Amino acid sequence: MTGTATLAQIARAAGVSAPTVSKVLNGRADVAPATRERVEELLRAHGYRRRRGTGHAAPLLELVFHELESPWAMEVIRGVENVVREEGLSVVLSESSGRLSIGQSWVDGVLARRPTGALLVLSGLDPVQRAQLTSRDIPFVVMDPAGDPGQEVPAVGATNWNGGLAATRHLLDLGHRRIAVIAGPGRMMCSRARVDGYRAALETAGVPFDPALVREGDFHHEAGYVAGLELLRAPDRPTAVFTGNDLQALGLYQAARELGLRVPEDLSVVGFDDLPLARWVGPALTTVRQPLTEMAEVATRMVLDLARGNRPNTLRVELATTLVVRGSTAAPSARS
Amino acid sequence: MTGTATLAQIARAAGVSAPTVSKVLNGRADVAPATRERVEELLRAHGYRRRRGTGHAAPLLELVFHELESPWAMEVIRGVENVVREEGLSVVLSESSGRLSIGQSWVDGVLARRPTGALLVLSGLDPVQRAQLTSRDIPFVVMDPAGDPGQEVPAVGATNWNGGLAATRHLLDLGHRRIAVIAGPGRMMCSRARVDGYRAALETAGVPFDPALVREGDFHHEAGYVAGLELLRAPDRPTAVFTGNDLQALGLYQAARELGLRVPEDLSVVGFDDLPLARWVGPALTTVRQPLTEMAEVATRMVLDLARGNRPNTLRVELATTLVVRGSTAAPSARS
Repeated sequence: MTGTATLAQIARAAGVSAPTVSKVLNGRADVAPATRERVEELLRAHGYRRRRGTGHAAPLLELVFHELESPWAMEVIRGVENVVREEGLSVVLSESSGRLSIGQSWVDGVLARRPTGALLVLSGLDPVQRAQLTSRDIPFVVMDPAGDPGQEVPAVGATNWNGGLAATRHLLDLGHRRIAVIAGPGRMMCSRARVDGYRAALETAGVPFDPALVREGDFHHEAGYVAGLELLRAPDRPTAVFTGNDLQALGLYQAARELGLRVPEDLSVVGFDDLPLARWVGPALTTVRQPLTEMAEVATRMVLDLARGNRPNTLRVELATTLVVRGSTAAPSARS
Repeated sequence: MTGTATLAQIARAAGVSAPTVSKVLNGRADVAPATRERVEELLRAHGYRRRRGTGHAAPLLELVFHELESPWAMEVIRGVENVVREEGLSVVLSESSGRLSIGQSWVDGVLARRPTGALLVLSGLDPVQRAQLTSRDIPFVVMDPAGDPGQEVPAVGATNWNGGLAATRHLLDLGHRRIAVIAGPGRMMCSRARVDGYRAALETAGVPFDPALVREGDFHHEAGYVAGLELLRAPDRPTAVFTGNDLQALGLYQAARELGLRVPEDLSVVGFDDLPLARWVGPALTTVRQPLTEMAEVATRMVLDLARGNRPNTLRVELATTLVVRGSTAAPSARS
């Protein structure tokens, strides 16, 4: 009885009634924990999958962020809203409070709500949680996977490596040779890919990679400021910095201002994301555009497609990043 | 049968069965439109109010924005999440697509979801929609009311008038006399209150109010840029501008940069809101802090309190605004 186990078979194997299995499937609280665990194990072991009846799922899309601090999140929310509005669905918003994995309480809530699907932004499910959603036939997609989401998990990202390459080549083309990089957190695959693109650009241009010019920090303003002060106070300071994202770039702007260095005359800066604020700051920020709103739209459509029972042609989609040149990059000055 | 009408009485008056009234109450689609309308009218006419049974409402809080464009919205979402996380509720996020009123499709969705309550940010309900939520015993609170939400609607705002007063007094104290104001949309009460505070500061300081120094625009960057160019290109340009919000202030920064004017040497700028980006820009922005996250927390607690059947001590709460002085304001230079 693998793959096609029925609810009645699961109930028999667990030694409980069919309504009890049904309660577990629907995330109801009135089941003894030991019973719940036994039923969940059997659901997993037998690859049980609830049949998707029409009208059974609620017109809800679950949207989970690992944190809501950044203006980044707003771009994603807008993309999701663009799609669900057309489809008559509502969004249930959750935050995993800075953890990259999702708590069990979220999964319990989802089982009770029976949403049409879920979109996880930089937040991962463990294999048990994944099996729980699968057995209830709740499809999910991961956007911009922080780690490796697993081969079988549908995911939407951006071409981070290409973005790192394009940003660094732009600086090399302007004549920079001492180019530093401030990376995002190393546990996130997107950070690693960007730094690898930076390194590839240097090496293909015959510029040696210098570990002293690499800093790591989280994706906030403060990290760019702190790393920026370190890099710019060094005796042999870089003439250009490729930052992990636009917020870090603003932190670097602040560090430069405090040290009396002008952007772009004394220091060129390239960001990543192209948030609205990249256009608003002075000088306007040269940055690698990551199409966050479009990525969210694609990911949301993928969830809805899976919910209709369509298997996507590909489980991985990477949208293109593009370099947007503005006022924060220029040729290094003779003094530098 | 006013005030205490039962479901059976409503059914009898409408000439339908009690289950049909129940379907209308729960926003179910399988009721003829004419029947639905007749039942809704009777519910309204008789002041029907569903009794709040324990466990009847879903652990959902509805959160509605009129638009999600601004980083402003993120501060509010964080406040709401702070409270609902403690309470084990989830947030259903909706956007009224730039309209200040809410569409009927949202109300229909809410009736079907039976949430614990609703928080409306700058979005208003019409009297019929209000009656629909009231008859289902779904409490709602308005945050930062755009218009006049009506005496009986619980609302949370900020002391906008005081903020306008404090911003303008700060500029007067620095020695400015030609002080312009860029207002938000006039249909929003918060904009009007800020401009009235500005005017009161001028008049109590004996500085005549000059209508030529007043501009109006929406709350986006572009509006500050456009109004800024107009004001700064005038022959007798202002030495200081109080803007409607931080995004407008950044638009004004850009206008000043393009005209070769330095902030604060040639132009002092005061914003409103104190979004995170106010600290990140150069020079850091002097602004009126509106405690958006705290306002959202207070409003969310108010909804949950109402859902527990507690009537709040006051239906209107205004949290204090505070002036935060940073680098964008200084005494006018002799040249100006």
